[in-house]
Amino acid sequence: MHLEFTSEHHKSDGVIERRFTLDGIPGILWTPASASPSAPVPLILLGHPGGIEQMHPRLAGRAVRAAADGFASLTIELPGTGDRPPVPVTEEARADLRRTLAAGDPVGPDLVDRLVLPLVDGAVPEWRSAVDAALALPEIGGPVAYSGGFISIGVRLALAEPRVVAAGLFAGSYIPAVILEEARRVTIPLHVLLQWDDEGNDRQAALDLFDAFGSAEKTLQANLGGHRGVPAFAGEDAARFFARHLR
Amino acid sequence: MHLEFTSEHHKSDGVIERRFTLDGIPGILWTPASASPSAPVPLILLGHPGGIEQMHPRLAGRAVRAAADGFASLTIELPGTGDRPPVPVTEEARADLRRTLAAGDPVGPDLVDRLVLPLVDGAVPEWRSAVDAALALPEIGGPVAYSGGFISIGVRLALAEPRVVAAGLFAGSYIPAVILEEARRVTIPLHVLLQWDDEGNDRQAALDLFDAFGSAEKTLQANLGGHRGVPAFAGEDAARFFARHLR
Repeated sequence: MHLEFTSEHHKSDGVIERRFTLDGIPGILWTPASASPSAPVPLILLGHPGGIEQMHPRLAGRAVRAAADGFASLTIELPGTGDRPPVPVTEEARADLRRTLAAGDPVGPDLVDRLVLPLVDGAVPEWRSAVDAALALPEIGGPVAYSGGFISIGVRLALAEPRVVAAGLFAGSYIPAVILEEARRVTIPLHVLLQWDDEGNDRQAALDLFDAFGSAEKTLQANLGGHRGVPAFAGEDAARFFARHLR
Repeated sequence: MHLEFTSEHHKSDGVIERRFTLDGIPGILWTPASASPSAPVPLILLGHPGGIEQMHPRLAGRAVRAAADGFASLTIELPGTGDRPPVPVTEEARADLRRTLAAGDPVGPDLVDRLVLPLVDGAVPEWRSAVDAALALPEIGGPVAYSGGFISIGVRLALAEPRVVAAGLFAGSYIPAVILEEARRVTIPLHVLLQWDDEGNDRQAALDLFDAFGSAEKTLQANLGGHRGVPAFAGEDAARFFARHLR
């Protein structure tokens, strides 16, 4: 399986943005113009909550920053989101979530499992195939890091994919109990961002997850503000984390 | 009142280290060789738990890093520590602490108050006098930041001393309830370091203190490890915090 490129855009900031499909899954690859077969670059996987076209401005911003540090970035659509066919269990769980939130009820562990685990189970093998396909390109050489907001996918990838050597995680989503258990077996270096007043996030769950990670190097950086209020300097600190572990 | 210099040492790394007394209080001032009346430098106050000669290697390390960024650093001995005359209430509280820890009992709020508050009440006016005296030197111009491990002194200084524009705090000491209340009125930018597994520290108390701060810009950086295990990159991140707010 390889990346079938469907468009190529040379941006003014020296980054090449290519859309592709991988066995029908839409994705985007960003490479610094400097990347070449004689100077292959490391790869950052850009995680997200689903909907890569809607997320494109923010994903592209992160990719441009990574390219400035000499790294390629790749993202793929999640199962059942964006232009991909709906996944019935996920549709049902999301409808239940809307009803639960509208009723002002707590989001219980069963609903969290139904919202998150099918996506993790579906997505992780696809992200691994994407790593295979990206590393088959002569201008991309590894190592690989995960960076992103779907923290459960990051945990599972950190555990399942030995080519992922570091992860920058954004603590802003529901965390199933099984993922909390898997986190104990994660040993790669981690940089976890937590927005202290994230309205959609359970702060204690994020602290518990950070505590659970088995990694010998793990950093939690909490900043004041809501879900989208990550300060610029936090992005810089995260970029330095990747530079330390990918170069 | 002015700094009476008692020694001057031009270190090989381009830093001038001068010991002084201020109305009988011993202290150390480090300035980058570049500091001059025509190019006065900002000032970082180096907080510590008491005993500046014992702490000298670590304090000097922080000062050399600050000098590389173009900042002077200053520290003074705390009341009743190092070569200063003992303070009876503090001696008594420390003896009670040793007995409490030896017995395996919890350190209650009354003991925390007795251990910390007399030191804060005594030290903060002295640190303010030291700021006066340091800023009277032509090569030091401000602004001023507090950096250090005696977090309650940092909180009180942040509140009491308008020339302190930012604080980098090391969450590793007992926190009296009155300091937690004062923290709500602190509004300067903060960078709080927490060692996640600090054996001598109450993690929840540190998180509560971080939550209490009224500052619009506050960052908590937690790293795996014990009290003295702060990783080098955390020092770099803290240095960048000071550079953002002092330049």
